[in-house]
Amino acid sequence: MGCNHPFLMNKPDPTHKSFKKVDRSAFRHDDLIGIEALSPSEIEIILDLADYYADRLDEREFKPDILRGAIVLTLFFEDSTRTRVSFEMAAKRLGADVVNMDIRTSSMNKGESLTDTIQTLVAGIGPDAIVVRHSEYNAPRFIANLVDCPVINAGDSYREHPTQALLDALTIRRHFGQLQGLRVAICGDIAHSRVANSNMILLRKMGVEVNVVAPPYLKPEKFPADGINAFDNMKDGLKDCDVVMMLRNQKERMQAGLIASEEEFFRDYGLTYDKLAYAKPHAVVMHPGPMNRGVEIDGDVADDKERSLILEQVKNGVPTRMAALDLLLKEKL
Amino acid sequence: MGCNHPFLMNKPDPTHKSFKKVDRSAFRHDDLIGIEALSPSEIEIILDLADYYADRLDEREFKPDILRGAIVLTLFFEDSTRTRVSFEMAAKRLGADVVNMDIRTSSMNKGESLTDTIQTLVAGIGPDAIVVRHSEYNAPRFIANLVDCPVINAGDSYREHPTQALLDALTIRRHFGQLQGLRVAICGDIAHSRVANSNMILLRKMGVEVNVVAPPYLKPEKFPADGINAFDNMKDGLKDCDVVMMLRNQKERMQAGLIASEEEFFRDYGLTYDKLAYAKPHAVVMHPGPMNRGVEIDGDVADDKERSLILEQVKNGVPTRMAALDLLLKEKL
Amino acid sequence: MGCNHPFLMNKPDPTHKSFKKVDRSAFRHDDLIGIEALSPSEIEIILDLADYYADRLDEREFKPDILRGAIVLTLFFEDSTRTRVSFEMAAKRLGADVVNMDIRTSSMNKGESLTDTIQTLVAGIGPDAIVVRHSEYNAPRFIANLVDCPVINAGDSYREHPTQALLDALTIRRHFGQLQGLRVAICGDIAHSRVANSNMILLRKMGVEVNVVAPPYLKPEKFPADGINAFDNMKDGLKDCDVVMMLRNQKERMQAGLIASEEEFFRDYGLTYDKLAYAKPHAVVMHPGPMNRGVEIDGDVADDKERSLILEQVKNGVPTRMAALDLLLKEKL
Repeated sequence: MGCNHPFLMNKPDPTHKSFKKVDRSAFRHDDLIGIEALSPSEIEIILDLADYYADRLDEREFKPDILRGAIVLTLFFEDSTRTRVSFEMAAKRLGADVVNMDIRTSSMNKGESLTDTIQTLVAGIGPDAIVVRHSEYNAPRFIANLVDCPVINAGDSYREHPTQALLDALTIRRHFGQLQGLRVAICGDIAHSRVANSNMILLRKMGVEVNVVAPPYLKPEKFPADGINAFDNMKDGLKDCDVVMMLRNQKERMQAGLIASEEEFFRDYGLTYDKLAYAKPHAVVMHPGPMNRGVEIDGDVADDKERSLILEQVKNGVPTRMAALDLLLKEKL
Repeated sequence: MGCNHPFLMNKPDPTHKSFKKVDRSAFRHDDLIGIEALSPSEIEIILDLADYYADRLDEREFKPDILRGAIVLTLFFEDSTRTRVSFEMAAKRLGADVVNMDIRTSSMNKGESLTDTIQTLVAGIGPDAIVVRHSEYNAPRFIANLVDCPVINAGDSYREHPTQALLDALTIRRHFGQLQGLRVAICGDIAHSRVANSNMILLRKMGVEVNVVAPPYLKPEKFPADGINAFDNMKDGLKDCDVVMMLRNQKERMQAGLIASEEEFFRDYGLTYDKLAYAKPHAVVMHPGPMNRGVEIDGDVADDKERSLILEQVKNGVPTRMAALDLLLKEKL
Repeated sequence: MGCNHPFLMNKPDPTHKSFKKVDRSAFRHDDLIGIEALSPSEIEIILDLADYYADRLDEREFKPDILRGAIVLTLFFEDSTRTRVSFEMAAKRLGADVVNMDIRTSSMNKGESLTDTIQTLVAGIGPDAIVVRHSEYNAPRFIANLVDCPVINAGDSYREHPTQALLDALTIRRHFGQLQGLRVAICGDIAHSRVANSNMILLRKMGVEVNVVAPPYLKPEKFPADGINAFDNMKDGLKDCDVVMMLRNQKERMQAGLIASEEEFFRDYGLTYDKLAYAKPHAVVMHPGPMNRGVEIDGDVADDKERSLILEQVKNGVPTRMAALDLLLKEKL
């Protein structure tokens, strides 16, 4: 199909602050399973395209129909209305149709193997792309190996959540102008967080200094990237940081009793103005949501329009997913 | 955007029985939270517009695209597939896209404040209007204060359900030609009914005589409007009435034991032909549904095509919601 | 509305292997409740049209808009995401809008009669067609008698699932070129299977020899069609068969204890290569899904691309439902 939206034609757009000629052909993947597989230049391509879409998001008339006639199937084996809707809106904004399958509440896979479920859905629906969330590690890769169409990982186990890391990187890049040379602290429940995992990998690939701050019981046995600086207290961990990225306490994934009390956790690791003062004077605050106010973050800090990029992160979800769908699908249609 | 559907241009339409020149600018609200806030002339504007849409509802080709590109977010914290679908159809008929968030079954707000849930949804989805149902009083107003876009209350607590009262008024007006001077009896479980509440307010504003008929244990401590006539028996309460509006027994909201038995309730307050005879000879019957036949209404009365407007009420749901969306959104796009 | 897709104009299409001039007016039903009511020539009309749509399914640009503006309501009183999505895709592919009502999880019908539920939905939504699944026998017919629009049975009780039988027949016809003169074995849990029931009726009407193979406790008291050959072992039942159609063991419908063990069932009735050898050398394997591998079918047999038509069956779901919607709706719009 003919693609004629401005970015794809590489027309210079003087209104677009970070526009530059992008060689989309340098993106060499059929799927987006994890940040791990991406090169720095591939990450840049996604961010450039996401940046382009983010700039135009508020233009009601901007509905590039580059995926017209395509069917995007969302397959959620774990509940996440928010992430699903974000992908759904991204797909529709590009002109695609969306079929949502909530496998968690469906009886469709009773006694049926994952392979049969996938093959049946693919035969019956004929999707052009599959967005999958699954509690088991590598399920998205397993599915990608079964099907001919691109697969996007919308979160698997505690390993990868690549579009979240990409939208976080987009948020940082749009704020600071670049990633390279920044120092980011990722704090809290590192061990159970696929968001933290994908972020560590991405930020290290992009030349960012990464500090991880976690109590011993929430620190993973090993990190997914080299050169991570580990701390067990906020004072040392936040020193000289440009970004303080807090994580949601994944209560549902923690064994009971690990945390003595939420009050104690908040006292030692909850982000307050006092602790934020350890970072650089203009350091910004991030959180992937949903927030537990008074547990991992103080409500006033979260709401501080001067310091918090939390709503910017949310806003960047749709354009980042538009970029991913665009890159993976445009050649296929 | 240019609005050019006939009504908006105030072109006379000789086929439209109740058409008249309407000054839409007299509608001065950003939201539709309750009937309480509306003036009689604002209610007339909504009813005129709803009447227009009701006349054209069966024309398959009539799909005025006045909300093209708009996103309507339905946020249901309480279950109501029927009302949600009615809003969804109204929005789509006007050309809008709809995102449904069923918060009740979603884990999205686990440990998250309502403020954070709303701000995150607004940032991520960028809706042009929000339709909200919530069990707590004033939640729609609370949400409206948080966001920039119009909010429509699809039912909160036992206080207001404005679009139901508007579609009921539309049904009465289309049957009798006008509201003023009629006498309406609202009967049954008044204390737990937001439908009754919004109807009492609307009908009194529009110059309708309102009789309320309820057993003492289902009568509220006070009425939401002045000049309501209270009765504890159907014989006196239905006297001289043009409309007998029955309510669903809200079992889920009543404390156990209030009603001795459904049989007893039906004997004293269930609408039968015998009791209907107390009203005017041509009095009509209404019920917001879903009905408990044999509890608050006799099945034959409900099905009597000469007397029952119950299916007319249902039919008027979509056009009434089209009118509300049209009025609140047209200036914003 | 003007219908101008090639098939409707009966233009010869030399690229379409089974194209022939079809007199659509010979299809004389307002609803598709069961195979029972259809004549052989009516079945041929549906299959011809389904065949046409199946040939064009992979053409992204093929989106005949013959149902533009129509609303298809799916009403599922029993869970079946897969069948619902298949109907939804078929309707959308023809340009219709779809409203999904999952009555099972909805509280909408609490205390409300089926008649009231249906009448309210029809009045509020104004559907042009209703697709219904219900656990009770004849509920689709009951609903069809209440409404003015076409009703399609998407499965009721253990009696009929007409679109499944039609897509199975389409799959066989596309493989063998015709139905007449073939011999089909239907094996396993016959007693609880609406798929088996509709297939027996359809295949007998079309001049197919039908063998039924079931253990005594899964054999129905009587068959829904004449001339069925009953067997209690695979060796005799599969003899000379062109098609071996396995069924899902409907555990949820079987009384506990009927089957001594799944291992024993697999040993006696599970389709293995050994048992398949009793059929004709080029016999093909079918299964309506979802499969219990190692219970009613061996995984290797199911996956054998030379012998198994299982994924073809799934692929034929959407075109078969497109044909049904097309036939029932085109005259109504």
